[in-house]
Amino acid sequence: MPTPNRPEPPLTSVDADARIRANFAKMLRAKRVAVLGASARNQFSAPVIANLDRLGFTGHVQLVNPKGEPIGDRPVLRSIADLEGPVDAAFVCVPQSAVIDTVAEAAAAGVTGFVVVSSGFAEAGAEGRALQDRLAAVAREHQVALLGPNGLGFINYVDRVPMCVLGRPVRTGGLGIASVSGSVGGYLTKVAMLQGVGVSHMILTGNEAGITIADVVDFLVDDPDTTSIAVFLEAIYDPRRFAAAAERALKARKPIVVLKAGASEATARLAAAHTGALLGDDRVFDAVAAELGLSRVYSYEDLIATAALLGQVGPVAKPGVAALTVSGGSGEILSDLAGAAGVAFPPFSPDVQAALEATVSAFGQTHNPLDLTGAALADPLLWERCLTAIAADETIGLTLCLWDPPIGPTEGWIKTSLESIARGYAAYPATPPLVALVAEPMTDYGHDALRDAGIPGAIAGLKPAVTALAQLAPWSGRVLEDRPVSLFADIGDGTDRPRHDRALLDRLGELGAPVVPGTIVEDAEAAVRVAEGFGYPVALKLVAPDLQHKTEVGGVRLNLADADAIHEAFAALSAIDQEGIEGIAVSPMRKLDAELLVAISHDPSWGPVLTLGLGGIWVEVMDDVRLLPLPADARRIEAALRSLRGAPLLTGARGRPPVDLAAASQAIERIAAAALALGPDLSLLEINPLGISGEGAEALDALALWKA
Amino acid sequence: MPTPNRPEPPLTSVDADARIRANFAKMLRAKRVAVLGASARNQFSAPVIANLDRLGFTGHVQLVNPKGEPIGDRPVLRSIADLEGPVDAAFVCVPQSAVIDTVAEAAAAGVTGFVVVSSGFAEAGAEGRALQDRLAAVAREHQVALLGPNGLGFINYVDRVPMCVLGRPVRTGGLGIASVSGSVGGYLTKVAMLQGVGVSHMILTGNEAGITIADVVDFLVDDPDTTSIAVFLEAIYDPRRFAAAAERALKARKPIVVLKAGASEATARLAAAHTGALLGDDRVFDAVAAELGLSRVYSYEDLIATAALLGQVGPVAKPGVAALTVSGGSGEILSDLAGAAGVAFPPFSPDVQAALEATVSAFGQTHNPLDLTGAALADPLLWERCLTAIAADETIGLTLCLWDPPIGPTEGWIKTSLESIARGYAAYPATPPLVALVAEPMTDYGHDALRDAGIPGAIAGLKPAVTALAQLAPWSGRVLEDRPVSLFADIGDGTDRPRHDRALLDRLGELGAPVVPGTIVEDAEAAVRVAEGFGYPVALKLVAPDLQHKTEVGGVRLNLADADAIHEAFAALSAIDQEGIEGIAVSPMRKLDAELLVAISHDPSWGPVLTLGLGGIWVEVMDDVRLLPLPADARRIEAALRSLRGAPLLTGARGRPPVDLAAASQAIERIAAAALALGPDLSLLEINPLGISGEGAEALDALALWKA
Repeated sequence: MPTPNRPEPPLTSVDADARIRANFAKMLRAKRVAVLGASARNQFSAPVIANLDRLGFTGHVQLVNPKGEPIGDRPVLRSIADLEGPVDAAFVCVPQSAVIDTVAEAAAAGVTGFVVVSSGFAEAGAEGRALQDRLAAVAREHQVALLGPNGLGFINYVDRVPMCVLGRPVRTGGLGIASVSGSVGGYLTKVAMLQGVGVSHMILTGNEAGITIADVVDFLVDDPDTTSIAVFLEAIYDPRRFAAAAERALKARKPIVVLKAGASEATARLAAAHTGALLGDDRVFDAVAAELGLSRVYSYEDLIATAALLGQVGPVAKPGVAALTVSGGSGEILSDLAGAAGVAFPPFSPDVQAALEATVSAFGQTHNPLDLTGAALADPLLWERCLTAIAADETIGLTLCLWDPPIGPTEGWIKTSLESIARGYAAYPATPPLVALVAEPMTDYGHDALRDAGIPGAIAGLKPAVTALAQLAPWSGRVLEDRPVSLFADIGDGTDRPRHDRALLDRLGELGAPVVPGTIVEDAEAAVRVAEGFGYPVALKLVAPDLQHKTEVGGVRLNLADADAIHEAFAALSAIDQEGIEGIAVSPMRKLDAELLVAISHDPSWGPVLTLGLGGIWVEVMDDVRLLPLPADARRIEAALRSLRGAPLLTGARGRPPVDLAAASQAIERIAAAALALGPDLSLLEINPLGISGEGAEALDALALWKA
Repeated sequence: MPTPNRPEPPLTSVDADARIRANFAKMLRAKRVAVLGASARNQFSAPVIANLDRLGFTGHVQLVNPKGEPIGDRPVLRSIADLEGPVDAAFVCVPQSAVIDTVAEAAAAGVTGFVVVSSGFAEAGAEGRALQDRLAAVAREHQVALLGPNGLGFINYVDRVPMCVLGRPVRTGGLGIASVSGSVGGYLTKVAMLQGVGVSHMILTGNEAGITIADVVDFLVDDPDTTSIAVFLEAIYDPRRFAAAAERALKARKPIVVLKAGASEATARLAAAHTGALLGDDRVFDAVAAELGLSRVYSYEDLIATAALLGQVGPVAKPGVAALTVSGGSGEILSDLAGAAGVAFPPFSPDVQAALEATVSAFGQTHNPLDLTGAALADPLLWERCLTAIAADETIGLTLCLWDPPIGPTEGWIKTSLESIARGYAAYPATPPLVALVAEPMTDYGHDALRDAGIPGAIAGLKPAVTALAQLAPWSGRVLEDRPVSLFADIGDGTDRPRHDRALLDRLGELGAPVVPGTIVEDAEAAVRVAEGFGYPVALKLVAPDLQHKTEVGGVRLNLADADAIHEAFAALSAIDQEGIEGIAVSPMRKLDAELLVAISHDPSWGPVLTLGLGGIWVEVMDDVRLLPLPADARRIEAALRSLRGAPLLTGARGRPPVDLAAASQAIERIAAAALALGPDLSLLEINPLGISGEGAEALDALALWKA
């Protein structure tokens, strides 16, 4: 489902699609490139040409400009028609008005991939949007890859293919960077340098008329040089394609870390009109991210550090983390940060504690994080001995060494320390070495020293380290779960709209959802007969199609204990002067153990979404809800319920009996299925409350909003 | 009040105290220094001697070692007796067993300040602790300053006085660093370098036998070269002295930012025994920090960035922040981070929006953060024009420019941009310029360019910038409030311990607290008479000194509506078989609008502390409490109540009538005063609930724990 203001690309044949993707991959590894609109004075073409040299492009370069003035030593062709041989990647920096003709002509001449840097397209209003749609159509017609417009290009650092206005040098490595924004992409390469993280690609998508973030992620999942993927994006224009790419990453155990700016205002407004702040688009994205195994972060530093750590460590089966340090203070700060972020530093097992005591008895403690004290400066082999001891711990999935070269020691000392660390890590069959620099940007010297010692990388700074560690357990869990992505639930073709809430409950019941029984009666005598069938106490409620908030007009009477009470209540309800009243419904009262709010809504990008919360203040004051994209089975629903902040109320806090969450979750699964069966016109179904009692879980009230 | 395991220094005469402080200040600005135990091979003395040269010490240096072997070009005296003239600072690196005699002899010989690096004192167990106490006594007897033992020394970067094992170079500036840990102090200078923050001092306190963190803070508050103070500490050993120093900093508008590791386990255990997790030491420290105007952070990066920002900006009267950026993506990320951290980026006023539209109409938007787009690269004067326009906004206290020099432009361009920014800031009479680097460590070049343009500093990284901004409003509020510190409430000398909870309520009532009335009766007839006096409904409760949880034995009967109900309840209560029952109390029932939990406890460091929360699940499940050190007036109590997460329940959420919080706060102020009047043996008074009804706020139940 596309976002409202941006159509999903029209469906082309699978072949065309595959050809465009192949051309995109070929562009990223281009051997023959061209710059169209090349000029020594143009603010875009000049740096692009300079970067080809500076970043070591070894392939064939052709420049085109009608004026034909040479640029430096390079000749300039006067016309696209003069291009020789096939061209894998053309950088287009002609004026906006000439872009479409240029791309059409070049594509016809055998250029198979384009970066369009020119602006003045969709970002500039309706007219620009129309031009962009034409540009996209031209590219699609020729089955060529189109990156941009209004994008700064890409750099393939591994194969040294820079087609980019930006040209910051990086260390080469396994991190693929995808960014809708050129300036953000540039910042991310800076941060990667500071953190000592090697980069494989930086790909800047701009307006995404052709190639989208989803295509870039898809490429990086397949790219053998890329081990983790860092993404900056604002919106996802092709959610199904993106989800498919993410699912492939999950299977490949290649982490995707996402920095997503802002929430879509359109979606947020839509959601606000339905259920206040409950269904903000950003929360839906969070829920989708959890399902897709995306790790979400909120700063440049965390994006790079998290992608690097997950890529380096891979999924771990045991969530516990240990740390070794020579600075007790840093161990404490790490522990405080970890506590706040929910990263578990479990105590060492008794056996490991005993082994550590034998190794390092002088410290007098064997806490985790373990303080080796200055003793490790004098005796670097302590690292190895302690790492080896900790490797035997059954709960520790990852051990982190906080290591900064102190001022003063010789290179020999640094080498001895790092080799001791590397040997210690040899005792860990499942996880690779991980060193954290406490407060140091990664220098070339440090990077080389680590590499020479056989330690593949490091994470710079305790705070980024903890943020990254906080993502390790959820990502690992999602990878190791080995479960297909569950998204974009099928919607039935039901077209009936129940006239009022009692009819809605009955319809949900027919569709398999557990609902409280209820009977519409015309007079008090009938009400009494129905009540006696249910057993007392009962509730009477007005039935009226247009009366959503019947409590406010006194239209609900609860806890009626006998026939007299029913007569009195029936008379009172009958006296209410509201249009469209169709009767009075009688339902049994339940003695509730707990109340939940259950809502099913439709996100324009991600399809049907389930919202769960405790009732009343928990939703309205505490904003304590969890969202799950549908379809979701009872097991995942139960996990979501257990993750509510108010979950202790369901699991036995303050002497309450614990609620049967398995039964409640099954009921919610059935409600969600029934909601989907109500068909595509349903905007929102809200069950409030879902009552949980000795009778099981039942929808006690229901509200539906329908598309206009 | 000292922490349990560490006695507060014995009281000496005010003169002696003043002389020690004067000697400490003289040591930090020493003109004549000595190294006792100097040796080219000693792991401590060698770097100390090297640092004297490396960091440019220009005063007089004497080295002492019984062997008398010269070190490099420097002669070595064989004996302390050979020292010439007074010595302001002696670095002591003799073996632990010789420390006390060395200090005694040197002090007698005219040395007035000591750094003791030797370890094996309090950190090494009881024997070391005894030695350390003797060392402290010797220093105190001679009225000399003693920094350490087990501390790495200090560096006064401004006056170039390094007496320190560490010697990392820094940029000189206004940040004073105080750290109990040497390694952490070293890391902090690294981070300061990376962030481009200049440092005045790094002072490492070690075991704090003589000089404590409080003394260091006190010195830095007075030091004219220091504009802000960054502190790493584990515990505060002299809370009253620390509080006095912090209060002086508040008056001097000099920010203190604190990174405090861990909670005191002893205090946490004590608190846990009383009220579970409610009164953990760390929360008390948070409450004290708020009262003292300390800004608390949790990482090295945030410590340096926050201290630098607060010191540079000073207190701002308007909490709103604006930002200008050339990267829309970075503006969005800043906005997302600010939202999560509670930093307000208010929309610009209509006038400012109009002015911005006139200035930068091409952008098509005037949101805050304001995206200048690439247009600012072409026209650097945009910075000035937009800054000038925003200066007129009534709600904006600080405007931040996100500025990184992009790759490519000339130095001339950078200069033009920064001068444009500086001129724009000239329109802000009250706040200084502030530039944030998005993703750049501060280079010397960048630092000089900013300085040359008249911009005093910058903050490196969006995430540290937002953490620092989050502290700006609370710190500014506390400074501008201009209110004396309210801590260490006086405790009355009351010695009576009421026998049971009804007697406790009565005693609190005599002491001025509002409590629910109640009368102890012997028989049901008397209960009925009392109830008729109060009016129905009433409650009956068992009165028994040792029965704290009377509900569990059925000892409480509520909502008794008439004489029959009283007879029945009285009979039931009388049948309960518990020892020590002294009667049955009758109290009126109130129709409550809300219930609060109010507790007064005694922190061993910070004295009486008030804990406030909503009752029941809000405390026990949601852990939603606020702490205030006492004394606290009703105005501060009301502010604390309004800051509870559950506060909407008090202020009218979900159609509830708002509670009279002013009256409740006055009641709590009186309860706290009454608790203090109960005397020094009270460990905990818990009012649960404080009922708020049409009758006002009343303690409905009370529990006291007393010291053994």
